[in-house]
Amino acid sequence: MTETDIPRAIHAWQQELGADNVAFDAATLDRYAQTTQDNAPRPACVLWPTSTEKVQAIVRIAGQCGAALYPISRGKNWGYGDACAPVEGAAIVDLSRMNRIIEINAELAYAVIEPGVSLQQLHEHLTQNDIPLWIDCTGAGCDASFVGNTLDRGFGHTRYGDHFLSACGMEIVLADGRVLNTGFTHYANARAGRVYRYGVGPSLDGLFCQSNFGIVTQIGMWLQPVPDRFCFFAIAADRDESLGALVDRLRPLRLDGTLTTAIHIGNDLRVFSAKGRYPWAEAGGQTPLPEDLRAVMRKRQGIGVWNAVGSLSGSAAHVRAAKRALRRAVRGLGRIVFVNDALLALGSIAASCLSWTPFGKRLSEQLAAVKPNYDLLRGVPTDVPLLGAEWRLRQPNETRDPGALDPACGLFWMSPVVPMTGRDARAVTDLLAPILTEHGFDALATFTLLNERAMIGIFNIAFDKTDPKETQRAVTCYDQAMAALLREGYVPYRTGLRGMPKLHARGDVFWEIAADIKRALDPHGIIAPGRYLPPIVDP
Amino acid sequence: MTETDIPRAIHAWQQELGADNVAFDAATLDRYAQTTQDNAPRPACVLWPTSTEKVQAIVRIAGQCGAALYPISRGKNWGYGDACAPVEGAAIVDLSRMNRIIEINAELAYAVIEPGVSLQQLHEHLTQNDIPLWIDCTGAGCDASFVGNTLDRGFGHTRYGDHFLSACGMEIVLADGRVLNTGFTHYANARAGRVYRYGVGPSLDGLFCQSNFGIVTQIGMWLQPVPDRFCFFAIAADRDESLGALVDRLRPLRLDGTLTTAIHIGNDLRVFSAKGRYPWAEAGGQTPLPEDLRAVMRKRQGIGVWNAVGSLSGSAAHVRAAKRALRRAVRGLGRIVFVNDALLALGSIAASCLSWTPFGKRLSEQLAAVKPNYDLLRGVPTDVPLLGAEWRLRQPNETRDPGALDPACGLFWMSPVVPMTGRDARAVTDLLAPILTEHGFDALATFTLLNERAMIGIFNIAFDKTDPKETQRAVTCYDQAMAALLREGYVPYRTGLRGMPKLHARGDVFWEIAADIKRALDPHGIIAPGRYLPPIVDP
Repeated sequence: MTETDIPRAIHAWQQELGADNVAFDAATLDRYAQTTQDNAPRPACVLWPTSTEKVQAIVRIAGQCGAALYPISRGKNWGYGDACAPVEGAAIVDLSRMNRIIEINAELAYAVIEPGVSLQQLHEHLTQNDIPLWIDCTGAGCDASFVGNTLDRGFGHTRYGDHFLSACGMEIVLADGRVLNTGFTHYANARAGRVYRYGVGPSLDGLFCQSNFGIVTQIGMWLQPVPDRFCFFAIAADRDESLGALVDRLRPLRLDGTLTTAIHIGNDLRVFSAKGRYPWAEAGGQTPLPEDLRAVMRKRQGIGVWNAVGSLSGSAAHVRAAKRALRRAVRGLGRIVFVNDALLALGSIAASCLSWTPFGKRLSEQLAAVKPNYDLLRGVPTDVPLLGAEWRLRQPNETRDPGALDPACGLFWMSPVVPMTGRDARAVTDLLAPILTEHGFDALATFTLLNERAMIGIFNIAFDKTDPKETQRAVTCYDQAMAALLREGYVPYRTGLRGMPKLHARGDVFWEIAADIKRALDPHGIIAPGRYLPPIVDP
Repeated sequence: MTETDIPRAIHAWQQELGADNVAFDAATLDRYAQTTQDNAPRPACVLWPTSTEKVQAIVRIAGQCGAALYPISRGKNWGYGDACAPVEGAAIVDLSRMNRIIEINAELAYAVIEPGVSLQQLHEHLTQNDIPLWIDCTGAGCDASFVGNTLDRGFGHTRYGDHFLSACGMEIVLADGRVLNTGFTHYANARAGRVYRYGVGPSLDGLFCQSNFGIVTQIGMWLQPVPDRFCFFAIAADRDESLGALVDRLRPLRLDGTLTTAIHIGNDLRVFSAKGRYPWAEAGGQTPLPEDLRAVMRKRQGIGVWNAVGSLSGSAAHVRAAKRALRRAVRGLGRIVFVNDALLALGSIAASCLSWTPFGKRLSEQLAAVKPNYDLLRGVPTDVPLLGAEWRLRQPNETRDPGALDPACGLFWMSPVVPMTGRDARAVTDLLAPILTEHGFDALATFTLLNERAMIGIFNIAFDKTDPKETQRAVTCYDQAMAALLREGYVPYRTGLRGMPKLHARGDVFWEIAADIKRALDPHGIIAPGRYLPPIVDP
């Protein structure tokens, strides 16, 4: 391989991109080295290409100068590595200035976008142009990239919750500067490039998720046509034992098509963390959250031990039928409420009429709390879920940038894929909760019914990075929890930088083949060395 | 590359597999060289491995002896190359003796099967063991392989119509004998290997469809739980112009989730060909079928110019709501009938009571005609659709093997992917029908609403191989039709051997990358040279 010569590369990039699109000052590097994880590899510089051609120039120069690149869409991969490369001294390729919405097709319900397009930008484009399509929002905030989330196989809440499953046709810059178009999009005048994902011949799209085989510069995404009817629902189950029954009763409805969206089942701690911070004073400084205080907070907030939220959409008759089936399915497990536009409007009127009464105040608060969730499921992005990362902060910085995290936020996600059975949901919870508790962390838990047969379990360690002891405990806890998950076969769907090396076992043909493909497409390991794949040994 | 030494390879394979699992007699080679296409490359021998280990031994010997392998599941790829390799002198690896049903999970609704498992075998296993799961059947007949169809991205009729989308976790023998397990299945004790398709890291499954990167020896397939209610529907539209309206009115129901299955819209010719052969006598030997005779036959069979069939399944309330929505959507376009078990039973009774009347006879015939279609959509495979291949035979052999085709059947499929709009359906029909008619063939057409945005158009040239002139016309017609489709951007989702080279354009990065991956995984081009990818030039 070429001897690494970063100064020469920076000079060449400045020539190609213009000085405004290259930075290596300390403040910028500090910002890009910020992470919620324990380790923050510092980049050598940051590059902002503005077109596919500029990305091609970047990889060619990287090849000539032996520089490692780390592409990010908008760098909001909170809790999974943020904007940080797995290795020191990489050139961050920040694609946020490639933010064109290239095409919207309302009839066939899709968009073609660049990686710099944020959820908020796409949402505003649709509403301002009266295009009756909804996006599937994630919890990563308004400023996060739709493409970036898709390439890490992130998910949201609706019928289009599995983002990679909604992707159709990608443009990718390869390490040697060639541009690959997938599906049918490499045929000059292809009509079905954004409506049929496989094309003809091998399907290559899967290679470019959770990997480092190329830099994706454009993607088609299917969107949901605004449905005739929409209805939000929330189920609150008061007993911990109800988790299994909840999963087992929802599974048949997911399998028979009554429920078609990515329903989230969260525990009380998850709901608390979405609404506010750890009650340090009430808990007398004790961690994890004492059981009796948990019960008091549940009562105060009117929530269950387990809480499912989701939506129903479609024709009026379908939504009505689904409501009935859902109500019947969860009978005896807990309370269920349905919220639609009419009810929200009515509630707002009632709350404002009764604003001088305690009841009116309570109703008004409850409506305010439900509104972002409700809107999120209707394609309106929100920054509210970011609050969860601040759960354990003792002195949060109230003036943080919108769409950014407080630098004190420590966050490790652990996201095992779990067969959709009550037994498995219980087994994973019983596996992780004691490990978290033992290290003084709260077992915040969510199970998302992503497809008809599997859930993604979302557990996390939220910690305060300003406390070095807590940070050390978080690292130990993460390592133990990940080891337990892998031992028990509940492999995560995605990991942060610290988790990636844990995925590899010696002699695993899967990772050997991934490395063979890496060597074929990027023989010098220019693109994102260490991302998911072990770094290759240069021949 | 090693000098090709087939005799040495055959000797080694006989040692490894046993003499019973290796054949190279003329009768066997004749049988495997039989094709519905114009060209039938003759194999050197046929191998029947009985386990993954035997497949590993086969590829190792092939590597040592420079032999080309061509794996088939059960070789029923009618009209797309049948059991034939793209090149002369290959060793056919017939996986039909690897026919274990390895696992059935009724709770999570999936099966794990080997390539030799036929639709009929899986169906019988489910019914005999009272497992309430349905398979998504294709039109390739009872004896066709579920895995083989999936690897060519075939499709059926139900909610699980897109077979590759239902595949979850594959076992693949690579050219060097290594065994790759995809998704989560390469983790020793993975729990979610058959319920979540991506695993963690890059998703490799797409590589092994319509390609030649390995030999798939096992696959997980999602199955449909038997629904609470099932209802078959048929729509008959009497005017040719109704095609566009039919597509445009069904699309919103597909997009909003009212319709969830792969609805087929076929023209009158398609229906005729499924019920009998070309009316040579009535047509006075003339081809294509004269318009006035078409009209007479439509009336006689009670069908429309365009005919949509599909099914509704789910809860009683959902099926009821979907029926209403469907009836409303097609109002004014044509007749719609719904058939369910109760109606079929009632009809049978009525038909038998009235069996001595003309009405009873007609009803009885109609029930007999609808039954295989009805059952097909409920997971019961049938050989009836194979009849379509005999459409133009003048002297069909009535004693052919069940599950095989008459050797006289000539058949080229042309299957463009078409955006789900009336404009596109019309454009493709108007593009292909004149080309077919000009060469004396009937424009048999189907559009399958495969996902929520795309249809697969199925056109075919059915010809009599015993007539050399007709065969030559079929070849010319196919070449012209494929050129027209590619020129207009309606690229096929799948092709036969004659079509594959037409897919490649010089300098298309997509096929270059596919070749790069081929060189990485199979540097000597042992596996299925020429299948979809251009044969590689050995370094």
